[in-house]
Amino acid sequence: MCSGNNAKKLAIVLASGGLDSAVCLAEAQLEYDVALLHVNYGQRTEERELQAFNDLANHYQIDRRLVVDISYLKRIGGSSLMDSSQTVETGVPEDGAGIPSTYVPFRNAHILCIGMSWAEVIGAKALFIGAVEEDGSGYPDCREEFYQKFSAAADAGTRPETQVEICIPLIHMNKEAIVRRGLQLGAPLALTWSCYTGSEKACGVCERCHLRLRGFSQAGQTDPIDYL
Amino acid sequence: MCSGNNAKKLAIVLASGGLDSAVCLAEAQLEYDVALLHVNYGQRTEERELQAFNDLANHYQIDRRLVVDISYLKRIGGSSLMDSSQTVETGVPEDGAGIPSTYVPFRNAHILCIGMSWAEVIGAKALFIGAVEEDGSGYPDCREEFYQKFSAAADAGTRPETQVEICIPLIHMNKEAIVRRGLQLGAPLALTWSCYTGSEKACGVCERCHLRLRGFSQAGQTDPIDYL
Repeated sequence: MCSGNNAKKLAIVLASGGLDSAVCLAEAQLEYDVALLHVNYGQRTEERELQAFNDLANHYQIDRRLVVDISYLKRIGGSSLMDSSQTVETGVPEDGAGIPSTYVPFRNAHILCIGMSWAEVIGAKALFIGAVEEDGSGYPDCREEFYQKFSAAADAGTRPETQVEICIPLIHMNKEAIVRRGLQLGAPLALTWSCYTGSEKACGVCERCHLRLRGFSQAGQTDPIDYL
Repeated sequence: MCSGNNAKKLAIVLASGGLDSAVCLAEAQLEYDVALLHVNYGQRTEERELQAFNDLANHYQIDRRLVVDISYLKRIGGSSLMDSSQTVETGVPEDGAGIPSTYVPFRNAHILCIGMSWAEVIGAKALFIGAVEEDGSGYPDCREEFYQKFSAAADAGTRPETQVEICIPLIHMNKEAIVRRGLQLGAPLALTWSCYTGSEKACGVCERCHLRLRGFSQAGQTDPIDYL
């Protein structure tokens, strides 16, 4: 967690609308004024995620919102998350199972770039992203090392006076810890959406639903959202 | 310059349609099969630049082209290049004059990300960008250090088997050297477009026109494009 006395400083929080980003937002709110960024990359469940993003922003009364479309990633392809002809894995991934088909090549770098450009223009001092290295997600762009190296690149590639700390408060937390922390911070978890397959209710069987349900279960809590 | 025997390997070349990208493309052609990427970021002269991009692609008979719109950068703002209410500097910048108003916050990082994602999907081994640190451009995202650090971030944030070398053959060349190298390689410089203010003929007075004209002059050559 970014520490120090940042009471009046501005942070940008990247918010997909999922559980992790809601807890990340709750962390950022403790110390910063927040501007909220949502990125649509042509994923199957975008409409539902955007609703969750706006519900979270309304809950925290955040007016400064930016929604950016990078659905060109869908044209570039390479991920089952954006391609309805590919199957999305179900169940919890095994450790060492490799990179899931839902990996969107280098996606988080695009999202960080948008956050960095916006931070440079509005003078934000921190950029929060709820990336999680644990739980065997296996995404290379969710590893702490990537964020450290991206931060060095951003320092080199922006104005000298642009000093934006990249904050990844959840990077080493598992879903159980994230659920516990979210409840501790009063994060509105009922407003979030995690399911990868998209419908009015969460499917309960995709990789994301499994991880989420396991997290609530291990935390001894009931997930407040509806499942099929 | 990326060296070694890469006769059959694939490279992505980032091509704005300007003089530098044309020479960069000519360099890449020496050793690689080329896929060509153009990024529209809402700059004033996009239409003319896209024409130059396609003229260059046709000249080199490159079928694999990707044109991506990131004009969300215009909404983020912060640059005279995308804002018709701001003035674009004229003349050649003095050394140490600071960062010009035409700097688009962290723009080249966005462009590199698109190139990296595409490279990961199509299996390209190199990513060429005609960035130039010389000539006092003053853009932080045109410095060699930025490319080195971005490359480290890309290695960390993509699949282990994704090994993409970022090639910046012009990084320490001035415009005179770029013009000489372009002519040596037979690059079709008459097809390129550099002017920042945009019209049927180049303005001849903006920063980019000045740098280009000075380069041709110092190389003892006449710029083949038309000026007002």
